[in-house]
Amino acid sequence: MRPLTPADLNPAVANVQYAVRGELAIKAEDYRGKLESKDHGLPFNRVINSNIGNPQQKGLDQPPITFSRQVAALMEYPPLIDIVKDKWPSDVIARAQELQAEIGSIGAYSHSKGVPLIRRSVAKFISDRDGFPCDPEDIFLTAGASAGVSLLLNVLITPPKTGILIPIPQYPLYTATLAQYNGVALPYHLSEPDGWSTSLDEIKAALAKADNDGITARALVIINPGNPTGSLLDVPTMEAVVRLCEEHSLVLLADEVYQTNLHSPSTHPFHSFKQVVRRLDSPIPLFSFHSTSKGVTGECGRRGGYFECTNISDEVRALLYKMVSVGLCPPLSGQVGVDCMVRPPKAGEPSYDLYKKETDTIHAALAQRTKLMAERLNALPGVSCVNSPGALYLYPKLELPDKAVEEAKRLGKSPDTLYALELLDETGICVVPGSGFGQKVGEHHYRLTCLCPGVEEYVGALEKFHNKFVQKYGGL
Amino acid sequence: MRPLTPADLNPAVANVQYAVRGELAIKAEDYRGKLESKDHGLPFNRVINSNIGNPQQKGLDQPPITFSRQVAALMEYPPLIDIVKDKWPSDVIARAQELQAEIGSIGAYSHSKGVPLIRRSVAKFISDRDGFPCDPEDIFLTAGASAGVSLLLNVLITPPKTGILIPIPQYPLYTATLAQYNGVALPYHLSEPDGWSTSLDEIKAALAKADNDGITARALVIINPGNPTGSLLDVPTMEAVVRLCEEHSLVLLADEVYQTNLHSPSTHPFHSFKQVVRRLDSPIPLFSFHSTSKGVTGECGRRGGYFECTNISDEVRALLYKMVSVGLCPPLSGQVGVDCMVRPPKAGEPSYDLYKKETDTIHAALAQRTKLMAERLNALPGVSCVNSPGALYLYPKLELPDKAVEEAKRLGKSPDTLYALELLDETGICVVPGSGFGQKVGEHHYRLTCLCPGVEEYVGALEKFHNKFVQKYGGL
Repeated sequence: MRPLTPADLNPAVANVQYAVRGELAIKAEDYRGKLESKDHGLPFNRVINSNIGNPQQKGLDQPPITFSRQVAALMEYPPLIDIVKDKWPSDVIARAQELQAEIGSIGAYSHSKGVPLIRRSVAKFISDRDGFPCDPEDIFLTAGASAGVSLLLNVLITPPKTGILIPIPQYPLYTATLAQYNGVALPYHLSEPDGWSTSLDEIKAALAKADNDGITARALVIINPGNPTGSLLDVPTMEAVVRLCEEHSLVLLADEVYQTNLHSPSTHPFHSFKQVVRRLDSPIPLFSFHSTSKGVTGECGRRGGYFECTNISDEVRALLYKMVSVGLCPPLSGQVGVDCMVRPPKAGEPSYDLYKKETDTIHAALAQRTKLMAERLNALPGVSCVNSPGALYLYPKLELPDKAVEEAKRLGKSPDTLYALELLDETGICVVPGSGFGQKVGEHHYRLTCLCPGVEEYVGALEKFHNKFVQKYGGL
Repeated sequence: MRPLTPADLNPAVANVQYAVRGELAIKAEDYRGKLESKDHGLPFNRVINSNIGNPQQKGLDQPPITFSRQVAALMEYPPLIDIVKDKWPSDVIARAQELQAEIGSIGAYSHSKGVPLIRRSVAKFISDRDGFPCDPEDIFLTAGASAGVSLLLNVLITPPKTGILIPIPQYPLYTATLAQYNGVALPYHLSEPDGWSTSLDEIKAALAKADNDGITARALVIINPGNPTGSLLDVPTMEAVVRLCEEHSLVLLADEVYQTNLHSPSTHPFHSFKQVVRRLDSPIPLFSFHSTSKGVTGECGRRGGYFECTNISDEVRALLYKMVSVGLCPPLSGQVGVDCMVRPPKAGEPSYDLYKKETDTIHAALAQRTKLMAERLNALPGVSCVNSPGALYLYPKLELPDKAVEEAKRLGKSPDTLYALELLDETGICVVPGSGFGQKVGEHHYRLTCLCPGVEEYVGALEKFHNKFVQKYGGL
């Protein structure tokens, strides 16, 4: 019997990289373990997981929306209605009863595309948002947005000669999934000087390169609001993207999971690609993703999400249905979460005032922290940070001392990984180096979330560390 | 702009077949829709989804375990503890508090392998079951067993020249997933005359064929208790399987999701492959799967499950960790379900009596229905059915009239598909034809679940239909 070694595995496995839960995150976990013993000898007392947009994690404790959780509790244990019917708002009871009548037990498999009633709720949410109709049959509920992205990347590529255009920097789910399925990532750079906007010229350059390399570009990924950049696309750019997709017969994959994380919605509103495509009366095939994990919902652990198909034929949709059937169905707890996200309490309903207060607080805190953090980071020597109008992140650029770059080289690490490792070692703050998302050669960034407990403690520690690091390696 | 057509998709998509939710299931859904109108004109008044092991679906209504659901409700809405602390059993409250202290909010992502406390619960369950130690680091919680199976099939193959040995008949997740990932299924036949036992000779024949075809067999799938067969392996057979894996350097994938669905446990007990491997002190790499979806739990919609790694190196385990990280984490609702499944109330605890009553009822009903259904099916002309000691299914063999076989050929369908379609058309009972699981050439089977509302109505309708079908096509 030979033992099973990494060399026996699918060679694609070796190419999968997912820095958000990579070396830094694993080290942070080790530190968290060490902190449990009194004489841990570490220079900090807690680990702050700023590597992942996980609003409800311990230590951050963004509270869940009461309405959604009361409905969820009633779905888990329907006889509870008798106990709480005079204690909880009547709209909570009514929603739970409506969902129970449709679903029966949430311990049963649902339709593979998700509960029909919830798909109708999603379709209504989308048509209200965009002002264009949405067919519930075009909605596939998924286990978070990730499951939908993974499925569609797998379905859209014909290995090894089909490529998908991926923004750089990107959320590494895209390159990781393409690596797993032997697809080709065709990187195009976002434009940092324009607030990380999408540059048509960069996409065209990537298309020309693909053509030259004998790769067929099948689809274009846009993340809007941006991850890791926090950018927000304006309508003219979106229209130009749609026209480009028409010209090059590209499927558009619109990752819009941060659509409600807007820090100044009056000046920087969100527009969906679905709306732009419909307004232009464009025939481009579009898949749009949304999730319960982000926004004010922040319910990552629930694994709720959906994708919408636009301009997708019945035939292709039937094949997607076949593919999702193999996985049986998305988690019912996530599906119920989607329903509450797209059908929150309305003004005048008993749960509305509390819902409004809870979500206003979350929006305000995030906007305020993002602004403050960007200001303070920009004031540091060698740091420049695009102020972000959306999502949960900042992606500051770092100028690093030559000696730090040399030291990183000696250790076989990228300079921003060295920076992030030392940051973790000294402060307990875990961020993800820019190399995990992609950046231009010779540039250094890191992504940090704007979710944090005390912003002062957090930013103060970042500042102190940065100045010390620059000094340690001989200054800028 | 060219529209997106099936020809543009990954060619692997066309090869994916998943009959459990295929043609029959889609037609059953259509009928369910039609039944909502008064003048539906159908010869039945309800659809019975006997195509899928989904105990809590509407119309079957296997009740969930009260203990698990009360804990789940408290996890969804922790302030509920104040309302129910004097109404619900103290062990429910204590379990919820313990899990809350560990997890925090179930709206947060957990560790990608699952909550550490729950992995320790699973490890204790396994070591108590087998009498051999289990390391929580070897446990990966998953979204149902399917997600783990899908990951491991993807990781273990090197397309296109690696194969996985798959029992025939099989649960079609295996062939569907291999098709999706361009792996090769190496079928080996189970032995119907021996109660669908695993035949070493058949596996050896499949290995010889693979060798001849230039395919490297990497792993062997065993489903025990069997799906769709309901068979149960004895220890000598299991030992021989382990020795065969040693000899041929095969990874063993043990799908043991029906391990607690035992109809006569005193004469037909379940033995885990983990226990056999440890007792033989065998070095074979083993992955064992379990799920909250089956057993007395029956919580399919929760998407809870796990796999255990046995004789897997730290290096390979680290690669698996990397792969699961890309999907972030399994649903927390499923993880909590796993904890309650592997740590149910114990004798003497406040929830125990109800738990015992609930689970005894489920076991007894399933055993009784299975026995009755097998007896009645066996009494029908041309039907022979192995009496099943485990799982949720029967897989009767059908002798069909020549004219039925001819008619099926004319329609371009397999004869058992014709049989299943007519059964659905006349009775509303949806089963899956044997061609969806695999069978020997010229044989016909179907799988039906032993979950049903009134067994008399159900079996009565099956009998009536069968006799009519045989007569319609000129008799046997």
